[in-house]
Amino acid sequence: MKPVINVGIIGFGVVGCGVYDIFQRNARAIELRVGSKLVVKRVADTDPDRPRPIEFDRSILTTNPEEIINDPEIDIVAELIGGVDPAQDYIMAAIRNGKHVVTANKELLAKSGHSLLVEAGERKQDFYFETSVGGGIPIINPMKTSLAGNHIREIKGIVNGTTNYILTRMAEEEKDFEEVLTEAQALGYAERDPTNDVDGHDAAYKIAILASIGFMSRVDVSEVYREGIRNITQKDIAYAKELGYKIKLLAIAKEIDGQMQVRVHPAMIPVNHPLASVSHVYNAIYINADPVGNLMFYGRGAGAEAAGSAVVGDIIDVARNINTGSTGRISCTCFEEKVLQSMDEVQCKHYIRMKTTDKPGVLSAISTVFGANNVSITAVLAKSTGEPGSAESIWVTHTAPEPSVRLSLEAISALPVVTEVSNWIRVEE
Amino acid sequence: MKPVINVGIIGFGVVGCGVYDIFQRNARAIELRVGSKLVVKRVADTDPDRPRPIEFDRSILTTNPEEIINDPEIDIVAELIGGVDPAQDYIMAAIRNGKHVVTANKELLAKSGHSLLVEAGERKQDFYFETSVGGGIPIINPMKTSLAGNHIREIKGIVNGTTNYILTRMAEEEKDFEEVLTEAQALGYAERDPTNDVDGHDAAYKIAILASIGFMSRVDVSEVYREGIRNITQKDIAYAKELGYKIKLLAIAKEIDGQMQVRVHPAMIPVNHPLASVSHVYNAIYINADPVGNLMFYGRGAGAEAAGSAVVGDIIDVARNINTGSTGRISCTCFEEKVLQSMDEVQCKHYIRMKTTDKPGVLSAISTVFGANNVSITAVLAKSTGEPGSAESIWVTHTAPEPSVRLSLEAISALPVVTEVSNWIRVEE
Repeated sequence: MKPVINVGIIGFGVVGCGVYDIFQRNARAIELRVGSKLVVKRVADTDPDRPRPIEFDRSILTTNPEEIINDPEIDIVAELIGGVDPAQDYIMAAIRNGKHVVTANKELLAKSGHSLLVEAGERKQDFYFETSVGGGIPIINPMKTSLAGNHIREIKGIVNGTTNYILTRMAEEEKDFEEVLTEAQALGYAERDPTNDVDGHDAAYKIAILASIGFMSRVDVSEVYREGIRNITQKDIAYAKELGYKIKLLAIAKEIDGQMQVRVHPAMIPVNHPLASVSHVYNAIYINADPVGNLMFYGRGAGAEAAGSAVVGDIIDVARNINTGSTGRISCTCFEEKVLQSMDEVQCKHYIRMKTTDKPGVLSAISTVFGANNVSITAVLAKSTGEPGSAESIWVTHTAPEPSVRLSLEAISALPVVTEVSNWIRVEE
Repeated sequence: MKPVINVGIIGFGVVGCGVYDIFQRNARAIELRVGSKLVVKRVADTDPDRPRPIEFDRSILTTNPEEIINDPEIDIVAELIGGVDPAQDYIMAAIRNGKHVVTANKELLAKSGHSLLVEAGERKQDFYFETSVGGGIPIINPMKTSLAGNHIREIKGIVNGTTNYILTRMAEEEKDFEEVLTEAQALGYAERDPTNDVDGHDAAYKIAILASIGFMSRVDVSEVYREGIRNITQKDIAYAKELGYKIKLLAIAKEIDGQMQVRVHPAMIPVNHPLASVSHVYNAIYINADPVGNLMFYGRGAGAEAAGSAVVGDIIDVARNINTGSTGRISCTCFEEKVLQSMDEVQCKHYIRMKTTDKPGVLSAISTVFGANNVSITAVLAKSTGEPGSAESIWVTHTAPEPSVRLSLEAISALPVVTEVSNWIRVEE
């Protein structure tokens, strides 16, 4: 049992300061639980002078991460700068210097996690990344430990707080996407350039990580289908409600006949599904596994406190491994190579909204096309648009293959009575 | 790395068979994840001939648990008989024989977990009990690892599937307690003698376990306040709905100014609280902690599959500890001794239903009593009973100390205009 275990933090921004602060304010409980004192010995940041919300000993601050990576007294390095470069190089150097590493970096994990895990694993060192998915929600550790007797069949997550906040506000206040986005930016819930969140990149990194763990097979994030929430309108939200659904940006991973489906897109889910009541910046991950059945993990997905909690939890687990000589006890779990299916293999229900001329026979013409493509319809809502001669109709299909729906919509778009196919949203039951 | 790790199961009933079955059907994934083959070498049960839903090698079955406890080749013992006697003796003997132990036994844990944990901890052996709370839901492991940097402030759980099933059916089908209980018994969701579930004993064991871990201080389960669901009527459920609440049997633990409150009773919770949508046999544990904020863990709380998943998860973690020489890495975490407050210290809102004569001045007489006891009222519903001369009124208080409400109700019962105080249910916001 080491009396003191030293931690170095690279990237002393929101999360880094959160981690430092947790070690101060919960110091006593942490020491009792670990049996060692955990000390943040050094923090590195490119900007030493930016305003920080915490009190800290400025003598531990450096602009040079090498002072952490090369410090023989530092046992655990927390990488909290994000992005691939230079985080990847810092982590690799730290691992090669015998450090255990904890990171919150979903992009790096999704793109290059495998090589880092293997490098650490071969050296019997720890490389932990609980914070990369779901912020403060324990999900990666439970999947690797408590659920290790299970065969994970399906993961559905609301894993991006920004988009969930926007969709929640759009639904609650009947506002449009652009308006809520601007407000979210003003409140700090969305970045000035919101692409990473709004177009589903962030969610894709996260579901690639979860799917890799769940299915024991590496998922190439560049092949994950990704669709953001920019096309979701107030109308779609209202019609979804009428049909008994809520619209969420879902990150979905399924194992079907030994192959993987991994995708991120807006989806309608039944209002009574546990994920439907996950609102605002909250995240949740819903898992179906054999034998455990359905599970859901819910909590705050971002922020200094939630992310800080997960980083500190990882550091504590590593510290316990150091004290029992068992670092590297759980390493990479991608033992298999499973095929990642294309969207052509996806089967689900579909919601389609279209604008048509307002004449008898229109619905029949459209239904005929669906029928010819073997797509059955479970509900149709015919709506007035307020414009004379024009109508809107909403179609919900039974479970149908993605290509059949795509072919149907191409043919329907070409019908003279159809002005436009306005939106197409998948429905996950 | 041991090529084979041997498991012995004491108690080969529903959960025991579930565990055996999981080791068969997920054998390959488990072996990949652990690095060793996990083999159920022997199972013990007092009744060798009872019908079992699985195929198994009958040569491993014995009626004598000593054949497991004394088998030098068995590394891990899973105790799945439940109850204190003889489970406690078997576990203690197994620990003293150098075995690691996994159990699902909440009663034993709540009553004598401390001595078993200490015995195992001193010998650097593992004693795991994830299954004792929340069935298949990972909750104890996350609290001890991922959340170890947190100060747990509050735990609210729906931790008894039987009572949650009964309350859900009562609400959905407008049936009374006795009727639904009888149906639940027929379906196997309630025992023939339902006392353990319906009167809150089971929930009390579970919240005592969670509170002990969360607050790092042993909770004496015999001092946990406990009230079951027998008094909940259709009327209360309907009025709760009208007021925006659902009624759930909650297991509650709070740390207030360094002291603990631990209690089990029916409570009204707002319909939009994440716990409100936990229905039927599902369980959920809602945690508020510093810094992580609010978390919820949701899943199936009982049954061969859910409980089996948790037992196997524990066995896998122990197996990894065996392989890395780190058994005993997390032992008892009750480092402190915190005072358990009595119900007199509890402050919450209250729902009170009473029958009165139908005369002017009745509400005023009742309000006067509440006022005299410093209990403020936030809502009153006056209802007709259908009987001439008689009325029903529903009162919801602001947050008030339990003794003030109790004194008020004593005085109100004595008012000539009050026929009876029919029910009194706490409200948790």
